[in-house]
This record gives sequence, structure tokens and C-alpha cells, in this order.
Amino acid sequence: MRVVDLIRRKRDSGELTREEIQELIAAYTRGDFPDYQMSAWLMAVVLRGMSRAEIAALTAAMLHSGQVLDFSDLPAHKVDKHSTGGVGDKTSLVIAPIAAAGGLLVPMISGRGLGHSGGTLDKLESIAGFNVNLSLDEFRRVLSVCGCALIGQTAEIAPADKKIYALRDVTGTVESPALICASIMSKKLAEGIDALVLDVKTGSGAFMKTVEDAAHLAELMVETGREMGKKVVALLTDMSQPLGRTAGNAMEVAESLDVLSGGGPADLRELCLELSGWMFFLGEREKSVAAGKQLAAKLIASGAAREKFREVVRLQGGDVRMVDDPRKLPCARQSVDVVSPCGGFVAAIQCEQLGTACVVLGGGREKKEDAIDPAVGIEFHKRAGDGVVRGEPLCTLHYNANARLAEARALAETAYRIEPQPPEDLPKLVQRVIGA
Amino acid sequence: MRVVDLIRRKRDSGELTREEIQELIAAYTRGDFPDYQMSAWLMAVVLRGMSRAEIAALTAAMLHSGQVLDFSDLPAHKVDKHSTGGVGDKTSLVIAPIAAAGGLLVPMISGRGLGHSGGTLDKLESIAGFNVNLSLDEFRRVLSVCGCALIGQTAEIAPADKKIYALRDVTGTVESPALICASIMSKKLAEGIDALVLDVKTGSGAFMKTVEDAAHLAELMVETGREMGKKVVALLTDMSQPLGRTAGNAMEVAESLDVLSGGGPADLRELCLELSGWMFFLGEREKSVAAGKQLAAKLIASGAAREKFREVVRLQGGDVRMVDDPRKLPCARQSVDVVSPCGGFVAAIQCEQLGTACVVLGGGREKKEDAIDPAVGIEFHKRAGDGVVRGEPLCTLHYNANARLAEARALAETAYRIEPQPPEDLPKLVQRVIGA
Repeated sequence: MRVVDLIRRKRDSGELTREEIQELIAAYTRGDFPDYQMSAWLMAVVLRGMSRAEIAALTAAMLHSGQVLDFSDLPAHKVDKHSTGGVGDKTSLVIAPIAAAGGLLVPMISGRGLGHSGGTLDKLESIAGFNVNLSLDEFRRVLSVCGCALIGQTAEIAPADKKIYALRDVTGTVESPALICASIMSKKLAEGIDALVLDVKTGSGAFMKTVEDAAHLAELMVETGREMGKKVVALLTDMSQPLGRTAGNAMEVAESLDVLSGGGPADLRELCLELSGWMFFLGEREKSVAAGKQLAAKLIASGAAREKFREVVRLQGGDVRMVDDPRKLPCARQSVDVVSPCGGFVAAIQCEQLGTACVVLGGGREKKEDAIDPAVGIEFHKRAGDGVVRGEPLCTLHYNANARLAEARALAETAYRIEPQPPEDLPKLVQRVIGA
Repeated sequence: MRVVDLIRRKRDSGELTREEIQELIAAYTRGDFPDYQMSAWLMAVVLRGMSRAEIAALTAAMLHSGQVLDFSDLPAHKVDKHSTGGVGDKTSLVIAPIAAAGGLLVPMISGRGLGHSGGTLDKLESIAGFNVNLSLDEFRRVLSVCGCALIGQTAEIAPADKKIYALRDVTGTVESPALICASIMSKKLAEGIDALVLDVKTGSGAFMKTVEDAAHLAELMVETGREMGKKVVALLTDMSQPLGRTAGNAMEVAESLDVLSGGGPADLRELCLELSGWMFFLGEREKSVAAGKQLAAKLIASGAAREKFREVVRLQGGDVRMVDDPRKLPCARQSVDVVSPCGGFVAAIQCEQLGTACVVLGGGREKKEDAIDPAVGIEFHKRAGDGVVRGEPLCTLHYNANARLAEARALAETAYRIEPQPPEDLPKLVQRVIGA
């Protein structure tokens, strides 16, 4: 194999064989050829695309670059959920304990915040002591004891993805459905799961802004997962405005606890039930999604789900007093309201801008090395379609002494479009289910 | 400037400003950002293209990455010729002395063989002692003494091109009209010339196989050169079969001496006169191209051109006995004929394959580090349209003990297509003049 020939073939819209892709990924992971050849190939993939067969081969090659976990000795069905990322999306914190409380095993390998979007690991770390860096042995122990465990990608899991992802980030080669699919699916399939529920976000706060792009990515992932013998469905869900009432790490933990306690905002609660329902259905715990949703609601009402969350926090070293009393979670010292400049209705929200505002406050990273402030974030008061009077708060920024407050505030202020008439059509929360 | 933003912009078909391109090239040449970002950007350029303004900016940025020679103190017009490369193309060896004998100054910075094509520097080095690595001071001295000098790209000339070219070679990003134009023109404009005649090859032995692609590249180069205030024309010339009777370094020197002595094959002689004619016209030595061609023919007939070649060889350290008696040039020990398997007419020639056969014999390099055997090469007996009887030699391979003779022979044998009827249309030698 000459790497330059594979680059040229992809550049000229040709197809690579399964063996060529396998060897390319293996050789790159071993360090047999330099980054500058890989980045040229990645750019050719971004601009020329990949066939379904190539995507399947790439996913398999990245998956098998590392260890594939095997929990077949644990009796229950292994099911996970993965979201493509958005603003205020804290569903993992709610549904992992719900699914575990319902008898499924959830071996969840999650990510950190990326760009304007939040990350499950960052949120969990706002609970003092919570360790997301378990060894694979510890991961297995927590999983077998309480039914769910939440960690970050270890060195053993899809190392090819880890190396390629770092390169994509700095070479403008992130935005490719083929590469996104292979990256997500290689990590998820390494978890040793039987079934996977994908939450593919669409709208102004998602990476895929249009329903068409989101549906295309969802189809690729569903198909790729099924070729690997897994049950997979994808829910296309709305990210044209933040999910729930908060964005910011500790604030999102508190909001998740609200949902686990039977409260919380309607949209977040609804989506958590929907995703849990699908997990119970695919995990053969219930005969239908509807029955799965009922089971999820019951597990919330009984307190079992919240108790499961407390258990996993404890097993992963977290301070359960913060779970028992969310007021003990890190809390920002100052706050400022962003108010409406006029009366009317919230016609549209630039959701990505709100996510970026949260990053600017310190709730996310602009460079890999940046430290996160778990306390800061944004509280959302108005949703699309809501009426508003002049001077009424649209959202509240919670911050610590921050040199960049003005920047965050400007982002938040210009994120809301207020019009005299209410908007006609608002996107549904779950827009489509792919692979049902 | 964030490099990743410029990569993303080009990836999304956007345009970069002159300042952005200038800064990108300068920063890369300084080593301020890594190869893997440059190669991603180059691949985006290959697949998305560049506007005329971008190409002009890229050429200028690469030109000004190094020294621009200034021969304005030398009284004559400075004119050069550049060919995009082919098989058996030895015109530089003929026309540099013709132009110098006619009173022009020819500060020629040439290249080595690339892929299947030969290179002027490799050919010159088959003359024992010929030094193509003159310092810029020595270059100026030879030029001012004899009117022409032939060297390779020095470290001072367009270092950005040197660094980028090496990267393109291994990342599948060679085949871009924009990048080819900027690479060629930045080096040629660094020569401090007033006028340039481009010989853009087209056909099976050229890098641009179709007339359309060749014409597009030619237009880009003519326009770019003119924006820099130079007189430029481009001749689109036929490379659907080898130029002249030989390919191989010493053999091509001998053939060039034939032409300089008033002999040589008709096609080679004709193209040399055509290119010299244009050089005399653009260099304001004659009022028309036709008059320029007549002057060139006169300089050959008088022996002045051959004497000029002898002079430049002497000044650059070469053994003039090889010029005086070409039989003293390196000579291969063995030869074998490639014969026609049937009677008929030569309908078409896979010219690139013949160039590759010459490389395989040792006349070119497959890796940068390979040494060249100056003696080996191919002698062509039949041209497209020629009649041939069964068993008659099509070409002769001249080789030294060579493990890869069989490979070269197979390439040469399959390069000729013999048909019962003569071909209807054969391409003209000069197909079009762009910028006339």
C-alpha cells in the first residue's frame, strides 16, 4: 500500500477497499506514516464523501484499533444512548440511571464539551470527587454493581479515533457525515452493547443545522450499527433552542436531579422518557416504546431512578451530599439578567450563540488546555413562541468574576429574535425516528 | 489568522484575500504551522480550485518568499522558456544557446526529471563536470559572459515553492492547475526576466492529457505572468508521442547537438525554431515571430548557436570534448530492439509509458534518492502514422546490466498500437498559441 495512491484515489472520487481502509487506519495508528498524509486524505474524504461500504470499513477499522469490551458474562441487555451534542442537553444524566433502575446495563463512554456544546463528563465532574477516569476493570465493577457507569474514552478504546479526531479538529475536517459516523460508532460499538439509541440533534444549536443533514447522518449511523449486528434507532430531535431550563455544568446536574425527582421542564422530561422508552424497547425490557416510557415514568415516580443516580455517583467517588441537596453543588457568585428590548414574542433563538456564551463565561473550553468553571452557566426563562414584555428577562447569566462577561452578554442579547406576532410553526421535539 | 479558519473557508469554496494568502505562505515557510495543516489546505485547493485573484496572490507570495534576481544592469532583454514536461523534450538545450547567440540573456532555472518526464538538469549532468549548482554570483557571471546559464533552483529562489512542492508530491496534491501555475510562475518570475515563452504539453506523454486542461493551465500562467508585468505567451504543443528521436539523458544531449549542427529530427528542429522565434519576438530582437525563426535558423547554420552551447558548457565546468565529439558522451553497453508484432501503421503511442520505460531503465528516478544512469535511454524509430512491417523495430532500448529490463521492455512493447489502416488525424506539433 502506498498512502499517496490512496489519497489520490479518494481525491479522484474513487472507492477504497475494506482491506485498504483497514491497513490505512492500522498504519496511521501505529505511526507508520505522517499526519500530513492523513490530513490530506481526510480532506479528500470530506469533499468526496465515502460509500456505505467504506464507512462500514472505516468504522470497523477504528473500532478494532483498540479493545472491544465484552460484558457477555453480565446477564442483562447492554444498551446505550448517544447524542450528537447541543445546548442544555443533559439527558444522559437522567436516562442512564432510569435504564439501570429498569434492569438494563448501560456502559456509557461519554465525551467532553466540544465547540459550543456541553459534555456529559464535564457535567459529572461538577459533582465533587466524581471520577470519570475509571480503569476498564473499575468500569466493569461499577457497571456490574449498579447497572450503569459513566466514563471517558480510555487509551484502550478506539485509539485510532482518538488520534484522528485530534487531527480533524485542527485541519478543518470535522464536518463530514462519514467521519462523524465512524468516530461515534467506533466508540459506541467498543462498549460491547447490544443496542443503541441515537439522539441526532438538528437546528440552530446542533452541528447538523438542517433536518436533511441530520437525517443523512442518522441513516448512516443506524445502517453502520446494524451491519455490526446491533439494534440501532435514531431520534431526530429539536435543537433550535436549548433543551430544558439551563446550560452550564453544575446547573445541568441540578436540573437533571429535578427530572429524576419527578419535576423539571416539560421538554427535557419528555425527551428523557422518549429515549428511555426506546432503550427499554430495544433492550427487550418492554414490548413497545410506549410501555418503555411508562416504565421510565414509574421508575422516576418511585424514586428508584434518583436512587440509582445516587448509587453511581457514590461508586464513582462523587460527593452524594450534592445529590441529596443540589444547593451544595458549585454555585456562581454573581448573575445578570438579559432582558427583552421590546414587547412581543420570541420568534427564533440562535441556540449555538447561547452555547458559545456559556463557553465564554467559563462553562466550556476554547482550547483543550482550558479549565472549566463548573458553577457558571445560563438560566433560560423564555422559549420560542413565548410572549414577552419590554424589560422582561429572557435569560440570566450566572458568572464568577469574569473579564469576558460583556462578550457573553452580547452573544446572549443578540441570540433572541423578538417579533410582534407569535411564530407560526415551531419544530416538534422529536421530529422523526429513523430505523424504527 | 487562524490556519484552521482558512482551511475551512477554502473547503467550503470560499475565497481567501491577498493578505491571507500572503500570511499563510509566509507563516508556512517560516515553519509557524505544521505540514498537516498545509496539506489539508492544499487538498481543499485541489478540489475547490482558486480564483484568478487567489492564484495571482499565491504566485506573488511564493515568489517573494525568496530572492527575486535583478539583472537590470545587464543591457540585453532577459527572456526564458519553460516546458511543462514530456518525453524526449530537450528543447531547452537547443534554444538557450540559440537565444543567447542572438543577443538575448537567458537566465534559466530548470528542474530535474519528474515522474515519467525528463529534466534539463539531469540531461546537462550527463556532460562530465557540468555544474548545475552554481551560486547566484556564479550564475550571474556565466550569464553576463555568455548570455545564458542553466542551473537548478537554489535555496534563495522561491523557498516556499520548494517546501510546498515536496509536500504536494507525497500528499496527492500535485494535480491542480492553480498550484502548478503558482509553482512554475513563482520560480520563473524570480529569474528577473522580461518575457517568458511557455511550452505547455498536451497528449498521452504530458501531465495535462487533454487540450482543454492544457489550455486552461496555459491561460492561467499567461494571465498570472502578465499581471506581474511580464510578456508571456504559451504554445500548446503535442506530446502524444515522444519529441524527436531519443529519450535518455546523454542521448538527448547528442540529439540536441544534432539540431544545433543543422541536423536532427524535423519535429524537434521545428519546435526549437518556433520557441526561439517567439523568444526573439518577445525579447524585441525581431519584429515578428517569423523573423525570429529565420534568425534562429541563421544562428544554427552559422555555427554560432553550437559555439554558444560549447561556451556555456565550458563556463559551467563541463567537458567540452563531449560537445565536440558526442560519441564521447556516456554510452550504454547493451541494446535490444522492440519490434512490431504485425504489419500495419502506428495508430497511437502511449507516450507516458515510454517515459516510464526510460525511468525503469535507470534514466530517471522513482524516489528522490535514486541515482540516474546518464547512458541509458530509448531510441525511437517509428512515429505515429508511420507504416511498419512485422518484425521491424519500433524502438531500441539502450541499457546497462539492468535487472528491470523485462519491465521496461514490456512497457515499450505495449506502448505502440498498430492498426491495418493509417490513422486519420494526427495532432499538429503546435496546436494553439495562447496570449499571442
